Amino acid sequence: MKERLERTLADIAPQDPAWRARARARLDQLTMPHWALGRLMDLAEDLAGMTRSLNPPVARRAVVTFAADHGVVAEGVSRFPQAVTPQMVRNFVAGGAGINALAAVARARVVVVDMGVAEDLADLVRAGSVVGRRIGPGTRNMAVGPAMSRDEALRALLAGIELARELAPGTDLFGTGDMGIGNTTPSAAIAAVMTGQSLENVTGRGTGIDDAQLSRKRAVIARALRVNQPRAEDGLDVLSKVGGFEIGGIAGLILGAAAARKPVLVDGFISTAGALIAAALCPSAREYMIASHRSKEPGHAAMLDRLGRKPLLDLDLRLGEGTGAALAMPLLEAAAAVLTRVATFDEAAVSKANA
Amino acid sequence: MKERLERTLADIAPQDPAWRARARARLDQLTMPHWALGRLMDLAEDLAGMTRSLNPPVARRAVVTFAADHGVVAEGVSRFPQAVTPQMVRNFVAGGAGINALAAVARARVVVVDMGVAEDLADLVRAGSVVGRRIGPGTRNMAVGPAMSRDEALRALLAGIELARELAPGTDLFGTGDMGIGNTTPSAAIAAVMTGQSLENVTGRGTGIDDAQLSRKRAVIARALRVNQPRAEDGLDVLSKVGGFEIGGIAGLILGAAAARKPVLVDGFISTAGALIAAALCPSAREYMIASHRSKEPGHAAMLDRLGRKPLLDLDLRLGEGTGAALAMPLLEAAAAVLTRVATFDEAAVSKANA
Repeated sequence: MKERLERTLADIAPQDPAWRARARARLDQLTMPHWALGRLMDLAEDLAGMTRSLNPPVARRAVVTFAADHGVVAEGVSRFPQAVTPQMVRNFVAGGAGINALAAVARARVVVVDMGVAEDLADLVRAGSVVGRRIGPGTRNMAVGPAMSRDEALRALLAGIELARELAPGTDLFGTGDMGIGNTTPSAAIAAVMTGQSLENVTGRGTGIDDAQLSRKRAVIARALRVNQPRAEDGLDVLSKVGGFEIGGIAGLILGAAAARKPVLVDGFISTAGALIAAALCPSAREYMIASHRSKEPGHAAMLDRLGRKPLLDLDLRLGEGTGAALAMPLLEAAAAVLTRVATFDEAAVSKANA
Repeated sequence: MKERLERTLADIAPQDPAWRARARARLDQLTMPHWALGRLMDLAEDLAGMTRSLNPPVARRAVVTFAADHGVVAEGVSRFPQAVTPQMVRNFVAGGAGINALAAVARARVVVVDMGVAEDLADLVRAGSVVGRRIGPGTRNMAVGPAMSRDEALRALLAGIELARELAPGTDLFGTGDMGIGNTTPSAAIAAVMTGQSLENVTGRGTGIDDAQLSRKRAVIARALRVNQPRAEDGLDVLSKVGGFEIGGIAGLILGAAAARKPVLVDGFISTAGALIAAALCPSAREYMIASHRSKEPGHAAMLDRLGRKPLLDLDLRLGEGTGAALAMPLLEAAAAVLTRVATFDEAAVSKANA
């Protein structure tokens, strides 16, 4: 099993500088003041470097939303009862959630994955509306010991990797998403370990807890870090000790997308925790990550900085599910269109600027 | 003619607070933590208030790109020759410009309007590919006198208003755009007059001028303001003395869209100069303006502050043409989808947060 992970990591190559240079050469000549479409042009260059193409495909889009439960909710870190995790999975399947609305606008399919929801979702898996990759009925309480075994962490990663591999032939653009009551708590723990920031800086209000609950949440994370002593340089160690099954699935999906040389839009706070695990396992994977937005969770900016990724959107989102990833997809379509649909000065017979 | 303007201004009513409240009541109950889609939900509330509907239509989109030339280019304020204005209009018609690429992604039509390009574009107007609303062969040099007469300014405004009226029955969402070599110079002049900021703060590099040209541009604007003494409280006065024909068209389009209760995405620096003229003529028109992005031009942020509008995107764009407006259109589609496609807690049988 470890070998399957190692093989995937070995498959991840950095962006191709030759294709980046070819894209830049064309973008430099477009009928507009130099680089006047700013970050769209940076993105176009990235897409060329990732896909090794001057016509980067972006039409077939999938948001993969991983759901799981968290033992740490026993500590009272969330405002919502754990039953909301399966209720929201059923809402995804019925098409009534935020991600359904935004994926429809982005013309993206939504793939919902049960990574370990406490309640049995076998009916949805049998019906084909949820992909079953259940590691267990939620993690254990990280405040008293590791959230999962190292073997379970590996299996969560491999589930994401396999899913990326299965979807890749029909998918040009991946987006990550999450659902799991309590999952800002492990994500904040991962943020603290991976960025070196204080718990004050990385712990936020999640679904909207009050000051007393926020203090408790910080204390719980502090306890989890003290009890488990996760090692930042070992992504699998961090995931197993203070992570979550859906966070492992997200990390795996990112690694699998990178191995397939496909761009992956990383959603918000929880997805970025997954991205930090992926980057710890393979720094080159960062070159396939596109930060879709800056979440309202206070730790998110530091996590993105750590990844060297600048968010495309900043709209006070704090929902997860993959909503930010879906919302940013049209920007990637626009970036590809700049590369493929805009004429050069010569093609359009437009006069250039004076030197 | 003045009466036609007054009639339009009288038609502009603020957003409807009752429809805003109805939208808010639904958004408050959606299956997500409260207001977790942040500014998308603010936008959804705005759309309901503008359109008086809980199902705000956004499917039929038009970017209206107004082109004109500027006498002030005689002062050497731009890096590009004036011939680029008609060359770019031909590029729009051929579908090879940035706006064509981004409007295609946004599924918006592009309406190109000749408000006064120096070169004759009658062939394009006859062919129906450009709307002819020519006020004259470009403005006069504002550094030595008014850019246009008050009558010409009024005609430019009315051209935009009439166009909005003609397009409104088939358009749910308007975007503004501009083309005109030299037009960051009048726009910076308008910004200075309307925001009270210094010329250092509002004058930028436009298409990419160097330090020497930037100093000259500032001196030219200072001269134009001294010679003309535009009065900030009189939008028509500012437009005529230091504006441009395309800026008048944009201001008129915004007023016409507001009168028709349609949202209008204001593009970047030049479009926002038009928006400031529109707001001076009718403060309520601001309630129909959506700031699509923050331009790289340094004065833009102050102009948006003056309008009380916060930009949706911040991607270092500085192209104009309506590209930022087109790029933001999917965000409005997303906002409408949040209002119409997401289930409430009751509808989806999802448990609410603990009080």
